[in-house]
Amino acid sequence: MFQNIQKMNDIPSPSKKRLIQLSQLLNQLTSKKITSPELQKLTGWGEATIRRDISHLKLHNGASNGYDVALLKQAIEQKLELAVKGQNEYKCCIVGLGNLGGAFLETSLFGSESFKLAAGFDTNQNKIDMLRSKIPLYPTTDLEKVIRQQQIEYAILTVSDEKAQIMAERLSKYGIKGILNYTNTVLTLPPEIKVLNASPTLLLQNLYQGVSLL
Amino acid sequence: MFQNIQKMNDIPSPSKKRLIQLSQLLNQLTSKKITSPELQKLTGWGEATIRRDISHLKLHNGASNGYDVALLKQAIEQKLELAVKGQNEYKCCIVGLGNLGGAFLETSLFGSESFKLAAGFDTNQNKIDMLRSKIPLYPTTDLEKVIRQQQIEYAILTVSDEKAQIMAERLSKYGIKGILNYTNTVLTLPPEIKVLNASPTLLLQNLYQGVSLL
Repeated sequence: MFQNIQKMNDIPSPSKKRLIQLSQLLNQLTSKKITSPELQKLTGWGEATIRRDISHLKLHNGASNGYDVALLKQAIEQKLELAVKGQNEYKCCIVGLGNLGGAFLETSLFGSESFKLAAGFDTNQNKIDMLRSKIPLYPTTDLEKVIRQQQIEYAILTVSDEKAQIMAERLSKYGIKGILNYTNTVLTLPPEIKVLNASPTLLLQNLYQGVSLL
Repeated sequence: MFQNIQKMNDIPSPSKKRLIQLSQLLNQLTSKKITSPELQKLTGWGEATIRRDISHLKLHNGASNGYDVALLKQAIEQKLELAVKGQNEYKCCIVGLGNLGGAFLETSLFGSESFKLAAGFDTNQNKIDMLRSKIPLYPTTDLEKVIRQQQIEYAILTVSDEKAQIMAERLSKYGIKGILNYTNTVLTLPPEIKVLNASPTLLLQNLYQGVSLL
């Protein structure tokens, strides 16, 4: 669902995708140790694949009697520069506070520490006044000022399909590095802007096709 | 973000992903014809890549003076068994009608004809009574009956993280083929069930990493 090509560190993309999910899975575990056969059972990925993914982390301790859950999680987070409380925290904002954007204001949806929801924007001042949220909300006229002052790097785009392209252009001008695009509009942006298209329709179509990195 | 491996028809997954997006892009165009250099400009994908993707459709007419937008769109839809009005319509349901699930009840979010939102479910009868929706809503106790009677094949999972695994297991027992998982829980399900993990956190982490099929 990515439009643009981007590369980071030396881990192949399919491994990265699995490691991100693995880090999420490790949060759910109550045990202290986990073996690759157990991970295979939980994820459906092959044991060899799991071991190869984990080998990218260059852990010092072996896996003879299982991986240490806490250490494994920490290693993934450090390697992928994911959540480490107080470090590597990326600020993001929500643009468009309709039902979907409004739902994303619930911070409980953001299960990790990596991304901090720093602001919400809407063109409708009445909507801003009516929404109750712990997240500071602003009119869209303040978009540039707030993004630059707070150094917000990522945006969740939940405006109408018609407004998506023009809003995305503004966001990319104001210094946003990546857009999570929930609209049905395919965005045309400079190649340095990362875009992940995540409209329910597109995701359902991908789900139906069963297209996969694995 | 896929957990399980699935294969359909003979088109490689990266091409499929791009073709799905291309079909969405074609909806936005007002012109009747489009050339591959124009598509390159709009999508950021290489011209050769675009031509190769389109070659999988085995169009009879060449692209000497551009592709016919309507025919190209139709060819993608037929090849990928996507939306053709009245045909290839897949029924889906929303499970969990909190803010996020409630937002997905807005049918305008579903830009295509491929997926028909057939039902919404929640454990809380009061919530069901209060929500105004064109989509029929049911208590979760009716989950099996409604899924089987209406032959619903796909589910959008928007319950709490704690309830995700148990609800996903029920859905897979009742005949659901694919789950769009918006919770932060990594699901453990039989390999024949397609799962696409789409929690905002996970998508932001993938966006940050810039992991891509392209």
